[in-house]
Amino acid sequence: MKSIAPYIDHTLLKPSASQHDILKLIHEAIEYNFACVCIPPIYVTLANQLLQEHQTIKVCTVIGFPLGYNLSKVKVYEAQQAVLQGADEIDMVVNQNFIKNEDWNGVEEDIKSIRAVSKNKVLKVILETAHLTDEEIIKASKIAEKSGANFIKTSTGFGKGGASIKAVKLMKSVISANMKIKASGGIRDLATAQKYIDLGVSRIGTSSGVSIIKGQTSTTDY
Amino acid sequence: MKSIAPYIDHTLLKPSASQHDILKLIHEAIEYNFACVCIPPIYVTLANQLLQEHQTIKVCTVIGFPLGYNLSKVKVYEAQQAVLQGADEIDMVVNQNFIKNEDWNGVEEDIKSIRAVSKNKVLKVILETAHLTDEEIIKASKIAEKSGANFIKTSTGFGKGGASIKAVKLMKSVISANMKIKASGGIRDLATAQKYIDLGVSRIGTSSGVSIIKGQTSTTDY
Repeated sequence: MKSIAPYIDHTLLKPSASQHDILKLIHEAIEYNFACVCIPPIYVTLANQLLQEHQTIKVCTVIGFPLGYNLSKVKVYEAQQAVLQGADEIDMVVNQNFIKNEDWNGVEEDIKSIRAVSKNKVLKVILETAHLTDEEIIKASKIAEKSGANFIKTSTGFGKGGASIKAVKLMKSVISANMKIKASGGIRDLATAQKYIDLGVSRIGTSSGVSIIKGQTSTTDY
Repeated sequence: MKSIAPYIDHTLLKPSASQHDILKLIHEAIEYNFACVCIPPIYVTLANQLLQEHQTIKVCTVIGFPLGYNLSKVKVYEAQQAVLQGADEIDMVVNQNFIKNEDWNGVEEDIKSIRAVSKNKVLKVILETAHLTDEEIIKASKIAEKSGANFIKTSTGFGKGGASIKAVKLMKSVISANMKIKASGGIRDLATAQKYIDLGVSRIGTSSGVSIIKGQTSTTDY
């Protein structure tokens, strides 16, 4: 079996995460060679410094997280700051309110505005699929691709539900081969992670990366 | 019994709240004469327009919500935009990570930087008390007052727990008579709201304002 490590976005997004917790996360990412560390904006500078000699491990942070209803210009400013501080990957939250208002132009402009300030960075659009209808998932997925994002991502981990096989299949059915999927939220063991990878998912966002690698089940969240 | 309406921050902060939902909230606030509407940043302009002829009802929005770990400069920018769009009251989330790092100077600078751009506006600092120890609640309450905030607020409604009598008593015990308290998170009936008001709380943040006024119990959240 291929190693699962390059699929793992090693994640700690709790508002109570201390610097000590983040240092531990970064050292685990180095030890296991995970794809990236996914961390709060305030810790990007620290992660960037510590990973200078481990360029294969990327620094990922979150924008408009986890509710996505900040003004677009605020999300843009937050993304600009993240890039300035050394983020390689940007996980932005879609504006769900715009989706519920059927303001699809607003959804698109919001993503495009962040794409414009994160050129050459990996941009993932978090749809929070547990809050959306099938039709909304389909439309939002297409718009994310049209707007130049690199990934669509299922969940923030702070919503009403996490990743689901159904949502990933739906996303997969409407995007091109160039577009990638990140499954996140509630993935805490190897069997579940493998199921998503078998479906064609390119990344798994989880705080249980170490347990997954070791074949254990974790009870942590975010 | 005195009317409870002037104590209610009529709140809808769900990421799925549609414009229709927000319009309903605003009309309810007018009908019952609540203290304010507490809404996502993207709806501040709309609320401000609709409340032009109802100046007693304030427009409140949230900053760095609900996790609080955005860069201070991003929270400052978000607060500036909210004020420009007509927000009267700013509910900012404290940086819990700084609290966990015992970086009390960081906690203070974060609040002060938002205070500096929201002069003459009501500034509430959300502590997310359910995530904090008693000692952390005490220190953060004192720092919020020292930093010029008008209120300390118990909870975002998105954390591990909401308001508690214990947390409010603790806050009350360490702040001056000039500082006010907003209890929020899980308050869904009149008896509970009254209990907090009897303790000296000046505002109740709830999405159940109409049920509370009518003496009913609500099952909604946020």
